[in-house]
Amino acid sequence: MSVKNPMLSHHISSQFNEDLQEVNAKFMAMGGLVEQQVTDAIHSLLDNDIALSVDVQYTENTVNRLEREIDELLTIILARRHPAAIDLRMVIAMSKANTDLERIGDEANKIARISQSLSEERSTSYGFMEARHIGNQVRVMIHEALDAFARLDTDQALKVLRADADTDREYQSATRMLMTYMIEDARQISRVLNVLWVLRSLERIGDHARNIAEQVIYIVKGLDVRHASMDEIEKKVHSDSNKSE
Amino acid sequence: MSVKNPMLSHHISSQFNEDLQEVNAKFMAMGGLVEQQVTDAIHSLLDNDIALSVDVQYTENTVNRLEREIDELLTIILARRHPAAIDLRMVIAMSKANTDLERIGDEANKIARISQSLSEERSTSYGFMEARHIGNQVRVMIHEALDAFARLDTDQALKVLRADADTDREYQSATRMLMTYMIEDARQISRVLNVLWVLRSLERIGDHARNIAEQVIYIVKGLDVRHASMDEIEKKVHSDSNKSE
Repeated sequence: MSVKNPMLSHHISSQFNEDLQEVNAKFMAMGGLVEQQVTDAIHSLLDNDIALSVDVQYTENTVNRLEREIDELLTIILARRHPAAIDLRMVIAMSKANTDLERIGDEANKIARISQSLSEERSTSYGFMEARHIGNQVRVMIHEALDAFARLDTDQALKVLRADADTDREYQSATRMLMTYMIEDARQISRVLNVLWVLRSLERIGDHARNIAEQVIYIVKGLDVRHASMDEIEKKVHSDSNKSE
Repeated sequence: MSVKNPMLSHHISSQFNEDLQEVNAKFMAMGGLVEQQVTDAIHSLLDNDIALSVDVQYTENTVNRLEREIDELLTIILARRHPAAIDLRMVIAMSKANTDLERIGDEANKIARISQSLSEERSTSYGFMEARHIGNQVRVMIHEALDAFARLDTDQALKVLRADADTDREYQSATRMLMTYMIEDARQISRVLNVLWVLRSLERIGDHARNIAEQVIYIVKGLDVRHASMDEIEKKVHSDSNKSE
């Protein structure tokens, strides 16, 4: 992601700015990695590509290392720079979003492991169309959430929240359909169950992308919109035009 | 939980101390609530007690409110008190553990909703013994993780990490058994699948209790033990006797 964080322009020549730049670069690198993990995990499943599923699992160590490094840098910033207002919210939000990125990587890993275990028996592909569709949706959600984070764009963040509601609905409907398949063709239960786990992981990934988008609203508006309804959130974000700098 | 946080004794008459006391009280109250939610959710499933499952869902609003209040108080502490060293780690750890507590509440809610939907058809109870057993395990893990947090007890925290490894193994074995049931008795697929979701929620609750326990080690020792193996963690915790105050 080449977009510059707009936070970096308003602290001219401060040490805080340099520190933030460093941690922001790592955060965006980690975001790019987990986005790739999700893309590869879905492809490894759909195309029966074992090498790709191994790649995903191999990346886990790097993602875990980045998670630790980001939290360490954020702690140093808090200890040395005492950020306030929007700067402090940026640091807190990045700490929360860091956890979400790592969890996205975890779920991609689960999908990759399932894909590997399914690769031996390719007779049917119940639910693969749904996995492809929901997989694409959550991949876009991650990308847009990270982009919203990089540009501090609350409209883009709201778009991610709306997409998550769609994903949840499609996940519910795909789950019901797979249950019908299982009942109709009991020999396929173990296979279909694995596809159900994949869908559940994708749904969780969507939730994490949503969490990251909520943090963007927190940074920019100082609003904690967790657990609020979409209507409440849109009203709050649009009425609150005074950014509490 | 009546145990006093040992952090509260070493800042005599400081404002930081008062702030920490306030947020700590809320954190422990929230911990008690989600522990109760998990207990009630399991009982509502096993005893077919719909009232109890409604209680669990009713508590969600309180838990969500506490999550927001705790994060708000922690942000104020960071902005006004500029904590350093172990005090800063305490604030950061509580912010992370706060998220884990809320997610435990979420999973308890999922179990309560499933329990409600299962209550109409009580013909079989495949997997209930496993749900009871794993449910008890993770309930104890939450209690001990919170207790370790309250007393800053790394030995207790290590105990929770070891318990999580056991829980994961038992979850795997219960899942395999339930899949066999489904294949043998296809009419029960939808029911058994619901019990599988319950077990998965319980396994996730164990993971969150583990995360809280890892934060205790971070506070006391300044060590980030996420993603490390049990052997590595025990070695690190025991060799590192110099608390980086």
